[in-house]
Amino acid sequence: MSDIDAICLAARSAALALAPLTNEARNRALAAMADAIDGNAVRILEANAQDTAAAEPLVASGEMSEPLLRRLELNERKVAQIAEGVRAVAELPDPLGVARMATLLDEELTLRRVTCPLGVVAAVFESRPDALVQIASLCLKSGNAAILKGGREAAHTNRLMSELLRDAASSTGEVPADALQLVEAREDVQALLSRDDAVDLLIPRGSNEFVRYIKEHSNIPVLGHADGICHLYVDEAADTAMAVRLTFDAKTQYPAVCNAIETLLVHEKKAGEFLPLAAEALAEKGVAIRGCDATRAILASAGAATEEDWGTEYLDLILSVRVVESLAEAVDHINRYGSRHTDAIVTKDEAAARTFLARVDAASVMWNASPRLADGFRYGFGAEVGIATDKIHARGPVGLEGLVTYKYQLEGNGHLVSDYEGADARTFLHRPLPLNE
Amino acid sequence: MSDIDAICLAARSAALALAPLTNEARNRALAAMADAIDGNAVRILEANAQDTAAAEPLVASGEMSEPLLRRLELNERKVAQIAEGVRAVAELPDPLGVARMATLLDEELTLRRVTCPLGVVAAVFESRPDALVQIASLCLKSGNAAILKGGREAAHTNRLMSELLRDAASSTGEVPADALQLVEAREDVQALLSRDDAVDLLIPRGSNEFVRYIKEHSNIPVLGHADGICHLYVDEAADTAMAVRLTFDAKTQYPAVCNAIETLLVHEKKAGEFLPLAAEALAEKGVAIRGCDATRAILASAGAATEEDWGTEYLDLILSVRVVESLAEAVDHINRYGSRHTDAIVTKDEAAARTFLARVDAASVMWNASPRLADGFRYGFGAEVGIATDKIHARGPVGLEGLVTYKYQLEGNGHLVSDYEGADARTFLHRPLPLNE
Repeated sequence: MSDIDAICLAARSAALALAPLTNEARNRALAAMADAIDGNAVRILEANAQDTAAAEPLVASGEMSEPLLRRLELNERKVAQIAEGVRAVAELPDPLGVARMATLLDEELTLRRVTCPLGVVAAVFESRPDALVQIASLCLKSGNAAILKGGREAAHTNRLMSELLRDAASSTGEVPADALQLVEAREDVQALLSRDDAVDLLIPRGSNEFVRYIKEHSNIPVLGHADGICHLYVDEAADTAMAVRLTFDAKTQYPAVCNAIETLLVHEKKAGEFLPLAAEALAEKGVAIRGCDATRAILASAGAATEEDWGTEYLDLILSVRVVESLAEAVDHINRYGSRHTDAIVTKDEAAARTFLARVDAASVMWNASPRLADGFRYGFGAEVGIATDKIHARGPVGLEGLVTYKYQLEGNGHLVSDYEGADARTFLHRPLPLNE
Repeated sequence: MSDIDAICLAARSAALALAPLTNEARNRALAAMADAIDGNAVRILEANAQDTAAAEPLVASGEMSEPLLRRLELNERKVAQIAEGVRAVAELPDPLGVARMATLLDEELTLRRVTCPLGVVAAVFESRPDALVQIASLCLKSGNAAILKGGREAAHTNRLMSELLRDAASSTGEVPADALQLVEAREDVQALLSRDDAVDLLIPRGSNEFVRYIKEHSNIPVLGHADGICHLYVDEAADTAMAVRLTFDAKTQYPAVCNAIETLLVHEKKAGEFLPLAAEALAEKGVAIRGCDATRAILASAGAATEEDWGTEYLDLILSVRVVESLAEAVDHINRYGSRHTDAIVTKDEAAARTFLARVDAASVMWNASPRLADGFRYGFGAEVGIATDKIHARGPVGLEGLVTYKYQLEGNGHLVSDYEGADARTFLHRPLPLNE
């Protein structure tokens, strides 16, 4: 049996043992995990120092980026925040055992659709030791066994953290130790990607290229997104000052994240008034503009946008700008070049807004609000598994409900299918029942 | 551009045009489709006669099964039923635009999760011209463009039916003609399976081998099931007469379908009393029993079950039987050999039933009811897309809700992310709103 065979088998077995645990039992394990992080802060920082020491020469030689090093690096405050994050997950409402539908099919025959865990979740992420803890707690809260693969750069930190979490989770005698397993070898990850028989969901976190690679090399359903090509469309009927503020926020507040905008679309009747004001605001932050011909006729300093620009996620202080003749042209542009992540319209015209919200094919569509608001915490989900741009299962910012599925529970009194067939067949009542009965 | 490129492009474009149509507009198209089937019954029967004439020699030579020919064959009554089925789909509640969550994030900042179509659904099925019409109507009702590939045996019927449906759907001037496209060439199907960029969901309908082939050869999410290895567990505390009736119904009422049972598990303290009575009832229908050693010690006429039997879907009048020492052993057997489709317990002991319902990892779990009840119509969904045994997106019998996803609609008044960061940061309200506001 290969390592990955053993890991998958242990994970499936742990998942079956996790499924019937109560919310209280899962929360006791989460509390022990948080305490273990707090109580071992010194050891965690020592392990992390080994990782950062090994990473620094790579940054110097250009093999690793500075922001990647920053995300790898822990300090006392970050460790305390990680422990707090685990406690916050414990406080979320129980995602399991929630009845989402209940029907009286016939006398003494009751059907309920009840949430339950997916089973085994595999998370593969680059660097970021905090991601390991976050995913591990979300999986445990939702009753799933987790197989975790962290970045090589964080090897010491991840190894210690996963040992601490595993020991702490199982210390209460309820959660099996194999509910949480770490994979380190590269060949094990490759093998894991092909185990759609054992893994129910794959959560990749990292760069576009990284997520795209995972999606292309696995048959396991993936929850996540590769690209975040988000748009802001400034309509003919936009409030100009609001449009400038939204453009500035959506591009500059944090340009390196997926819900920052990459392309600004402007109605031709608004462009002359709006674009110079927007360009002036963006210049404060040094944003480079790449525009269509009509944009460049208004903004002399703008570079020329090529066809490639419309499909590019800069993740940087660069913005492509296109002047459009109509709302319909803006919607077409977004549906053609967008990544179905988040797109917004600025307008005072409710009919235009409704058309935009209905016709733009994206996980989040917004009216007079910043696309940067598309986020699980801001949406009120408490914790975020990730943002999904596919349409199956869960879409947009995904909270704990992305880690659960449901089962139908049918309770009868010896009901047969043959009672409902042929002469004298009974008919079904199909009477909806209150969900909390 | 290849044929399949053109088909995919046309389907995506049609999907974007379909998404904003009202329920009334979609229902008008469905009514026209039903009328077109009724009004062309003679032509449909002529085309079908060509298909059955070509199929009969294949049945004679053993290249096609008799049941497959029966499913291919239409008559006046079946054609009328097909048209009625389309009208029944039109009468289902609108699956689109349903708010599933609404939250006031802050003053004048409202988030809604609203159902919307998936986009493009491809259905690939063997024979059965009625499946073509059913899938086409379900896709249209849910605002999805459909790419349909029927069995070669039904080529004439499918071609005529799809032309009639396409013309009828677009006759009201609202649904684009390309909302419904037929694929016939084998190489086009192969090409289609690789188009996860253009197709959002794949629905295969047919034999186990057929569904397994589709799953293995496509990266598109698949809604369906390959195997239906369903179990009935007769607990120590079962009502014996009820257990016999449920066994008889679950095995013999329609053995060739996925929710018929393949394996009967019996508690060792119940086996001596129950098994002879069950065997007597099953013998009426000529069911062959393949038992474990303990079973054969009670039922002298039973054959010997091998390890392979526990993982076999007979779809025939054969039943494997195993005596278990405990409820836990029954649950372990099901989780090991089952296909996560439908499994039931017969017992008067509520605690045993609750344990079974919680621990068995299947789409439908039942207490004192026949697994044959696991079906979209019987569950009250009105129409069935299929039964899914995977855990992602939709599980178990799937109605129209399996053909929709959701989008988040955020409506604000110029809300920025920077308002919620740094000093003087606003905090979110996250106040739940009634769904129908």
